[in-house]
Amino acid sequence: MDNRPIGVFDSGLGGITAVRELKKLMPQEDIIYFGDTSRVPYGTRSREIIQKYAIQDINFLKSHDVKMIVAACGTVSANLPAAAVEELDVAFTGVLLPAAQAACAATKTNRIGVIATPATIRSSAYGKAIRNIIHSPVIIGKACPLFVPLIESGYIQRDNQVTRLVAEDYLRPVLAEKVDTLILGCTHYPIIEELIGDIAGEDVHLIDPGREAAKYVQAFLTNEHMLTRRERQGECYYYVSDDAAHFAENAGVFLQDDIADHVEQIDIDRY
Amino acid sequence: MDNRPIGVFDSGLGGITAVRELKKLMPQEDIIYFGDTSRVPYGTRSREIIQKYAIQDINFLKSHDVKMIVAACGTVSANLPAAAVEELDVAFTGVLLPAAQAACAATKTNRIGVIATPATIRSSAYGKAIRNIIHSPVIIGKACPLFVPLIESGYIQRDNQVTRLVAEDYLRPVLAEKVDTLILGCTHYPIIEELIGDIAGEDVHLIDPGREAAKYVQAFLTNEHMLTRRERQGECYYYVSDDAAHFAENAGVFLQDDIADHVEQIDIDRY
Repeated sequence: MDNRPIGVFDSGLGGITAVRELKKLMPQEDIIYFGDTSRVPYGTRSREIIQKYAIQDINFLKSHDVKMIVAACGTVSANLPAAAVEELDVAFTGVLLPAAQAACAATKTNRIGVIATPATIRSSAYGKAIRNIIHSPVIIGKACPLFVPLIESGYIQRDNQVTRLVAEDYLRPVLAEKVDTLILGCTHYPIIEELIGDIAGEDVHLIDPGREAAKYVQAFLTNEHMLTRRERQGECYYYVSDDAAHFAENAGVFLQDDIADHVEQIDIDRY
Repeated sequence: MDNRPIGVFDSGLGGITAVRELKKLMPQEDIIYFGDTSRVPYGTRSREIIQKYAIQDINFLKSHDVKMIVAACGTVSANLPAAAVEELDVAFTGVLLPAAQAACAATKTNRIGVIATPATIRSSAYGKAIRNIIHSPVIIGKACPLFVPLIESGYIQRDNQVTRLVAEDYLRPVLAEKVDTLILGCTHYPIIEELIGDIAGEDVHLIDPGREAAKYVQAFLTNEHMLTRRERQGECYYYVSDDAAHFAENAGVFLQDDIADHVEQIDIDRY
């Protein structure tokens, strides 16, 4: 038993898709979330800058004595070197390996699409992970630099014309390769999962990285006897590096919850 | 005579629209440019964070002994407090006042539109500046949060369908108010000036803030006897806080110049 909170971080809003799944699976767990809203987006930046920001985010969560850290950010998961992860003195997972495993389990044709940020696609990390699991897959990667700005700007309605046009552009070359499984390789993307599903069609299996990471966290904590045991429901506190009210509003819409009293701004440069 | 360079900064790529105009007007001047590409965009962040970043950008330029600093960023120009500017021991201008003056000179109907980032619109700084110059103007402001991500992602072709759709959305309520003058209140926007012009129509006068700021800089340096005097052409050095090659490629397209040997990455957190 370990009643300390789970730490979750992302460049901004995307990681709350993982929080939602963690809360569904393990409602008794406390969660500390950090969204780096003063430096979002990460996915259009260089590997060096992404690593620097990720280490600061991890240091912040460690200062809250979390029992496990979830990099609920596809870009960080794809660009944090194994050596940096091994140095951590706390349990850690990204979203990439759980999502890759789920895609390999779901595909029948071994033709898998990956849509993600430019930094994730450039890393080829999804391809490497998938090739470690199944033999001779066909992997079609596509960078989608505008999805995060569109989602952070609230262009998330299923029938949003702009987001639909952008999504059609991005998905066309991926769907042309007749993939049967599509990894939403950035935790922001499940926020527009229905819109993406409308374009991909019901025969394409969509993989939500936050959901898969949450399942892994549950399995890991169970296996390591680190689940929380107590009477009350778990609580979730959110920290951000820019304005708290703005985040509470955006995240609240997605979580269908008023979180205004649970969001606080911190200075990430101190970590 | 003062042969020191002019310092110019922006959140990213936008400020090069001011550099282009400075080079046209004063080809003998050296320019030091800083683009904060590890933290772009600024216009969707809070006033507090924008001020913090701007002060670091200014400190970096001061470390290069510039004779004048141009905040070639609409968001910074609108959100930097007068007190912070007064404390500077170097000549300074933003783009806001020159653009507001140009708009007031151009309008015949006193109906002026302002398109800019959310932080600039929220500040009401353009409205205040215009009301100081002309009596009873009608000012229609519209925040355009997606323009910077679209431009930084290269969606800048005159016939780009996505950018056109977004621009039509943003401009509709402004044009409905029959403005005769439209301030492109962010230095990124002149990069898509033709596309905006196609939608606004030829009867609407577009104001380019970088161009107006460059004219002011020329007038100021002339008046203060601070122009450079020497034989050779001026040179421009670019510093960025993320990958140099990426910036050189994007900026090179716009400047129609190969600047790869003149771009260097620095750590802005040190300033």
